[in-house]
Amino acid sequence: MLKGKVLIAQGGGPTAVINQSLVGAILESRKFPGIEHVYGALHGVSGIINEDFLDLTKESTANLEAVAATPCSALGSTRDKPDVKYCQEISKVLKAHDIGTFFYIGGNDSSDAARIVAEHAEKSGHDLTCIHIPKTIDNDLMVNDHTPGFPSAAKFVASAFAGINQDNAALKGVYVGVVMGRHAGFLTAAAAGARLYDGDGPHLIYLPESTFNMANFVKDVKSVYDKYGRCIIAVSEGIHDAKGTPIITSLMKNIEKDAHGNIQLSGTGALADLLCDQIKAKSGITRVRGDTFGYLQRSFLGCVSDVDAIEAREVGEKAVQFAHFSGKKHGTVTIHRTGNYAVEYKLSPISDVAAKTKVMSKNMINKDGNNVTDAFMKYVTPLLGSGGLPTVSRLDRSNAVPKILAKKKK
Amino acid sequence: MLKGKVLIAQGGGPTAVINQSLVGAILESRKFPGIEHVYGALHGVSGIINEDFLDLTKESTANLEAVAATPCSALGSTRDKPDVKYCQEISKVLKAHDIGTFFYIGGNDSSDAARIVAEHAEKSGHDLTCIHIPKTIDNDLMVNDHTPGFPSAAKFVASAFAGINQDNAALKGVYVGVVMGRHAGFLTAAAAGARLYDGDGPHLIYLPESTFNMANFVKDVKSVYDKYGRCIIAVSEGIHDAKGTPIITSLMKNIEKDAHGNIQLSGTGALADLLCDQIKAKSGITRVRGDTFGYLQRSFLGCVSDVDAIEAREVGEKAVQFAHFSGKKHGTVTIHRTGNYAVEYKLSPISDVAAKTKVMSKNMINKDGNNVTDAFMKYVTPLLGSGGLPTVSRLDRSNAVPKILAKKKK
Repeated sequence: MLKGKVLIAQGGGPTAVINQSLVGAILESRKFPGIEHVYGALHGVSGIINEDFLDLTKESTANLEAVAATPCSALGSTRDKPDVKYCQEISKVLKAHDIGTFFYIGGNDSSDAARIVAEHAEKSGHDLTCIHIPKTIDNDLMVNDHTPGFPSAAKFVASAFAGINQDNAALKGVYVGVVMGRHAGFLTAAAAGARLYDGDGPHLIYLPESTFNMANFVKDVKSVYDKYGRCIIAVSEGIHDAKGTPIITSLMKNIEKDAHGNIQLSGTGALADLLCDQIKAKSGITRVRGDTFGYLQRSFLGCVSDVDAIEAREVGEKAVQFAHFSGKKHGTVTIHRTGNYAVEYKLSPISDVAAKTKVMSKNMINKDGNNVTDAFMKYVTPLLGSGGLPTVSRLDRSNAVPKILAKKKK
Repeated sequence: MLKGKVLIAQGGGPTAVINQSLVGAILESRKFPGIEHVYGALHGVSGIINEDFLDLTKESTANLEAVAATPCSALGSTRDKPDVKYCQEISKVLKAHDIGTFFYIGGNDSSDAARIVAEHAEKSGHDLTCIHIPKTIDNDLMVNDHTPGFPSAAKFVASAFAGINQDNAALKGVYVGVVMGRHAGFLTAAAAGARLYDGDGPHLIYLPESTFNMANFVKDVKSVYDKYGRCIIAVSEGIHDAKGTPIITSLMKNIEKDAHGNIQLSGTGALADLLCDQIKAKSGITRVRGDTFGYLQRSFLGCVSDVDAIEAREVGEKAVQFAHFSGKKHGTVTIHRTGNYAVEYKLSPISDVAAKTKVMSKNMINKDGNNVTDAFMKYVTPLLGSGGLPTVSRLDRSNAVPKILAKKKK
């Protein structure tokens, strides 16, 4: 049962709708009469040990709603991974401020942080309720059908490729777009949402779920190019060779890792440039362009799936309800698809999700490992939102004017 | 006076609203009773010499309106630059098809192509009316206050940096965003439209109008980082040293040029990576990320300034009206600002625009060459559209909770 003070924090990479979850948890908490204050910790768990708290009880509802519509973590984020000493500091601060409930909004690494904090509380006899609220554009949390943040990022990626498809049809050539995704290819696969007409790109999609082979890649590109005079390729930043070594690491001298041991894949255009160089060198195609979508994917202003915004709000609200009504001390809110399309929410054990990675199931990827299947399209389409993507239309090519000079030449 | 057949084509890089101009010219042409057919050439001037024409008279208004709302050249584009022989081929085809009026939608290079075609027609006694319709995201056409395509691309860049600003505030570090712009910095400068609160990024803006000095750049970045604990930088792809050599060329082995002699700047992440490496090596800052916005800037689905869409439509319509009413055989439609904010359109000599480049005026750039002035903000703000950018809101940082443990430590 909720009473006294609750604390909310946000961890890991921001998303377009993570503030919906924050605001959902704040407003829902304030509906329970036992709640005196709702605190927010700045920059995730690091804000707890530094006692950097905002009293969110003092926010107006109008401003909270405006914050909910703003992309990226309003409380700030962190990549810190708590160890035992870190947890002792957290306990100390939470006890000092008389905080009985902690909501942590984040992905795999943040859910693992929540697990560590919850387990330490259990062991040390600290009476703390700890609920993890899911978010990640990578869509790679176990148990969940999908995760808040993914649908909006998927809409961004599909919208980007829909535009790129028009651009590349106007000025033909090869285009490589590198999309975020370390182990799971969901976001890259969402590029397929851009296809509307026959021959539309992306024509090839490479995912971390499959082994990447450079020779096959160049062969695939050449084959599409020979057919359409152009080729659009979506590639996950996390593509790797048969040994599991990311293709990008073959390029980088100083490999940067975060506290969770993750190699830096984003924030560099190196992989797109490598792939373009290989295509130019080995296929003889001259106009080859590469873009790395980078941080725009998780933060771009004004690209939100309404389905995502609603669900992100709801996981925040449900976290508070589970904390009050479920009778359980800890857990993670999980999203389950029911029907086509609706969802329901459950409180699952944090350890079922923490530090684990869900990848695309085999039936979502084609045999050659260079495209997605109809099963994936069925999965992803309702997530892009009620309006789908903006319209893409083209001129009727059947209205060709008969050639006069070419006729005379015969 | 318009009669018989008119031909429309699109050249150069696509934009988000170039099809508004196309559809404006098609629909307006069809209002004049002397017009029998409106043809469209596929892939610019190259479609003329190949006789690749669509009869746009056969398009429904509903489909044309849907095409108008679709980004990128619906007729396809080209980088071809006509020489005398090319012009002779064009004349031959236009005469064979009895086409008396040619509308060419494009930027600097396309306006030069229109000039060459028009001058060749004059010299050879070919009775042809040739009107250039402006577009370019670079905003670098002389005479024009601004050019269709720029406002929507500016909205994209400002929206991207507004999101990046949130992202970078949540997970602090240095962020370099490379924006399109070979000689003119308008589009990069538009990143400043992202600023709302004190301390918001982009904190530094580097433009091709100023000489780029790597040592000063690193010093600037360090200075901002020391103040805010973070730093967001917008950089034009065309930044160059004191000799005018693009910074990016110091990196590339095989330099690719198009028919107009332009070096390839886009479609590679090399410049962002170079700048990030320099910052890491020389400032000691560890979290440094770079993105290259690439082709998304000119093609992204669903990011259009309504002011831009209207003006792009109008330059297409005005081109037809000028062809019919002005009594002049050739010209380029130019946009002139009047009041705050309205525009009027004129027919100017093509040679005033063709192959020339307008750059930012000195009063738009600060003395240090690392930021824009209020004069630029006044210039760009109305172009971003009636709704401005989507809302960005933040939590009230004055609601900090007093520290308890830190107090005890004292």
